[in-house]
Amino acid sequence: MAKDQKKMVDAITSMDEDFAKWYTDVCKKAELVSYTSVKGCMVIRPYGYAIWENIQRILDGMFKETGHENVNMPMFIPESLLQKEADHVEGFAPECAWVTYGGSEKLEERLCVRPTSETLFCEHFKDIVHSHRDLPKLYNQWVSVVRWEKTTRPFLRSREFLWQEGHTLHATAEEAIEETEKMLNVYTKFCQEYLAMPVVQGMKTESDKFAGAERTYCIEALMHDGKALQAGTSHYFGDGFAKAFDIQYSNKENKLTYPHQTSWGMTTRLIGAIIMTHGDDNGLVLPPAVAPVQVMVIPIAQHKEGVLDKAYALTDELKKICRAKIDDSSNSPGWKFAEYEMKGVPVRVELGPKDIENNQCVVVTRHNREKTIVPLDKLSEVIPQKLQEVRDGLYAKALENRENRTYKCTTMDEITKALEENGDGFVKAMWCGEEECEDKVKEATGVGSRCIPFDEEQISDVCVCCGKPAKKMLYWGKAY
Amino acid sequence: MAKDQKKMVDAITSMDEDFAKWYTDVCKKAELVSYTSVKGCMVIRPYGYAIWENIQRILDGMFKETGHENVNMPMFIPESLLQKEADHVEGFAPECAWVTYGGSEKLEERLCVRPTSETLFCEHFKDIVHSHRDLPKLYNQWVSVVRWEKTTRPFLRSREFLWQEGHTLHATAEEAIEETEKMLNVYTKFCQEYLAMPVVQGMKTESDKFAGAERTYCIEALMHDGKALQAGTSHYFGDGFAKAFDIQYSNKENKLTYPHQTSWGMTTRLIGAIIMTHGDDNGLVLPPAVAPVQVMVIPIAQHKEGVLDKAYALTDELKKICRAKIDDSSNSPGWKFAEYEMKGVPVRVELGPKDIENNQCVVVTRHNREKTIVPLDKLSEVIPQKLQEVRDGLYAKALENRENRTYKCTTMDEITKALEENGDGFVKAMWCGEEECEDKVKEATGVGSRCIPFDEEQISDVCVCCGKPAKKMLYWGKAY
Repeated sequence: MAKDQKKMVDAITSMDEDFAKWYTDVCKKAELVSYTSVKGCMVIRPYGYAIWENIQRILDGMFKETGHENVNMPMFIPESLLQKEADHVEGFAPECAWVTYGGSEKLEERLCVRPTSETLFCEHFKDIVHSHRDLPKLYNQWVSVVRWEKTTRPFLRSREFLWQEGHTLHATAEEAIEETEKMLNVYTKFCQEYLAMPVVQGMKTESDKFAGAERTYCIEALMHDGKALQAGTSHYFGDGFAKAFDIQYSNKENKLTYPHQTSWGMTTRLIGAIIMTHGDDNGLVLPPAVAPVQVMVIPIAQHKEGVLDKAYALTDELKKICRAKIDDSSNSPGWKFAEYEMKGVPVRVELGPKDIENNQCVVVTRHNREKTIVPLDKLSEVIPQKLQEVRDGLYAKALENRENRTYKCTTMDEITKALEENGDGFVKAMWCGEEECEDKVKEATGVGSRCIPFDEEQISDVCVCCGKPAKKMLYWGKAY
Repeated sequence: MAKDQKKMVDAITSMDEDFAKWYTDVCKKAELVSYTSVKGCMVIRPYGYAIWENIQRILDGMFKETGHENVNMPMFIPESLLQKEADHVEGFAPECAWVTYGGSEKLEERLCVRPTSETLFCEHFKDIVHSHRDLPKLYNQWVSVVRWEKTTRPFLRSREFLWQEGHTLHATAEEAIEETEKMLNVYTKFCQEYLAMPVVQGMKTESDKFAGAERTYCIEALMHDGKALQAGTSHYFGDGFAKAFDIQYSNKENKLTYPHQTSWGMTTRLIGAIIMTHGDDNGLVLPPAVAPVQVMVIPIAQHKEGVLDKAYALTDELKKICRAKIDDSSNSPGWKFAEYEMKGVPVRVELGPKDIENNQCVVVTRHNREKTIVPLDKLSEVIPQKLQEVRDGLYAKALENRENRTYKCTTMDEITKALEENGDGFVKAMWCGEEECEDKVKEATGVGSRCIPFDEEQISDVCVCCGKPAKKMLYWGKAY
């Protein structure tokens, strides 16, 4: 390792030493975020925001392909509107930011800055939905929301975060459930294919459901440190909100009927998930699909005649097939290697005088630092393969981590022992269906229920906690 | 005009009868917006939002081409931060929405929902700019902002609106001024080429400058009713904010220096400008570049064999070259014609059994309702020409309106007379440079100063108001 490269790497804490510190170091050193004077509100810097733009572009395309349209709701919810659905207000009021003044005038009714927009969509649906011909409504919006959290961490838990929230209204329960599941599958595909992040699909238990939902589906991912992260949720509301907001449509028999509703969301938290799934002690490792720069060209001995010209030409060629960039700054190659490893650029291409002589370049993949010598006339063919290799390599590694850290347990002692011996991870264990047992397991072992997976297994016949007959298998884990 | 077509058109007020009512009718009937229970906060519906998405995509591309990067700042500004620059807080505090509670706890310091983000960018710049190597910073963000206005109208003046705000920091005044002017030119190009909206480039007078700016450049457009609309602004701040926020960098001589700053913005108000520049008594007329649907295919006698199949095939062909859609609903062709005229779709293609027999279709351009019979094998060639024709036709019409409604005046009486005889419009008149005269002209004639145009003319030697020597020519107009 070159000296200046080492210096840069030394600047971040090792993951094994202190994972939380490693995480914030990466957030700062890779220039993803910057703090502000308001706790829990962050600046998303250009490199971080470019990742989000890629996430947006891909997801937005998937939403539009599945028939959804984007809209934009106001950011303010009058208190009386928020209160219309009892469970919903109970869940969200404690973490609302409240606007009480407009200019120097006290408002007659205080307004909450949206923590989520079900109530606003309901108010709008009541306005525009009257007949079965008006259904379904398949809406989404890209906005920021505010939740006044006590403890905050960049991307993972911030008081303001960016997200998309889908809100749909359907004639029947079946259609709405189908939509809820369809969007969970869209999220799953997005995480696995584009973010190279394996996820477990499942349903939240009663105690963990979204405030006001009948069912909350989720996808759960396991981070490098063995903690679980909820990567996306999709909620089925039944007709509860429709009743609370008096949304009715006349069906084909001309009878007034309550429609059925869903909502689903993914947030900038995904960037935190990417960091903690793929990152290493050299910094960020980005899945190619969302990397702002997929290939960084680094000229070697660039002062020598012809090197820069050739490197520019090569970069221009690469730009036709991927997001490529050249670093022609006066920094040393070693410094540049460390810089773009820190920033997680999936592939780097080195090109020096000897390479040019031999009509070749050196291609290095970030995730495994493998070097390949590639003839220049094959580069356009090799780069897409390499990008795919990075995605596949990241996925395989993350899956292996998850499998190594998933423990089947039949008793509380087994849970404690598994976690102690192998470190944090997913626990698979049976459950009787009682909230009391969820609480007890969490208290005794530290892992809370994450979801009832779609792929259930019969690990034993009795609840891991109380010994009564088991109804479900749960994934358990420690949360962020 | 078919009966059902007439019915739909009757639903909106004529522009000549009541322009303001015509405007809100179009906003609602074209399904651009919907009201909410919070005054001045609107739902931007799918069709309206799709126009905004097109505006965003084009402008964002232009910003990136000129070297800008997107970031995301928080939406909250602590009161003490807003107060750091005296003119700025004076301008914005009266219209801030204030957050005073987080959950059930009263905040120690109240937070304003950003009305604009200069102060947040300054706080961030102070964090990240230390050396001349850190400059320039060329940032932009796409967010919503809040200004607690008393009177509100959809798109034109709402309490929350969507916008982009560019914020840049430069080593020298010259560079910053160059940036300010460059972005004004980007805005001008966008309005004229993409929105087919002619604009006057100029500078705001002292009294009309942005709070905290040294100079405010603007582009002003004339609406169909003769009122002036500010379509975009670009501000040069000098080093005033840098001094207020103590942002310094060490220059090449290693001396601490204050950098120079700009900001520039365009908003959803542009959608209002599009409506009022191009719309007519049949509804919206959209410039093709931002139209969600550029070509609508309408099958005639679609129950007859082969019509729909042919129409689908033709739509698929069109989709390769533009944003095309088919309406295969059971509504009558007349209803569909009126519907997509209301929605301002630039081109419609009619295809019936006789057309199919003759291997042709009928192409109708929205802005002039001209019909052209086009052989089917020429359609892919003709459509791009037709879209260009619409853009050019809209531009010419808007320019003609502006020229017919621009009056050169040398006395106050001439202003009054010109407005009375020809209706509202732009007034070109000389000005001594005193704010008092701006106020007097407005009071006496109703037109306020809009800008000192880049293209000044010497209309007379004396101020239109006080008769003292003239320093500048101003454009004057009534504002929204």
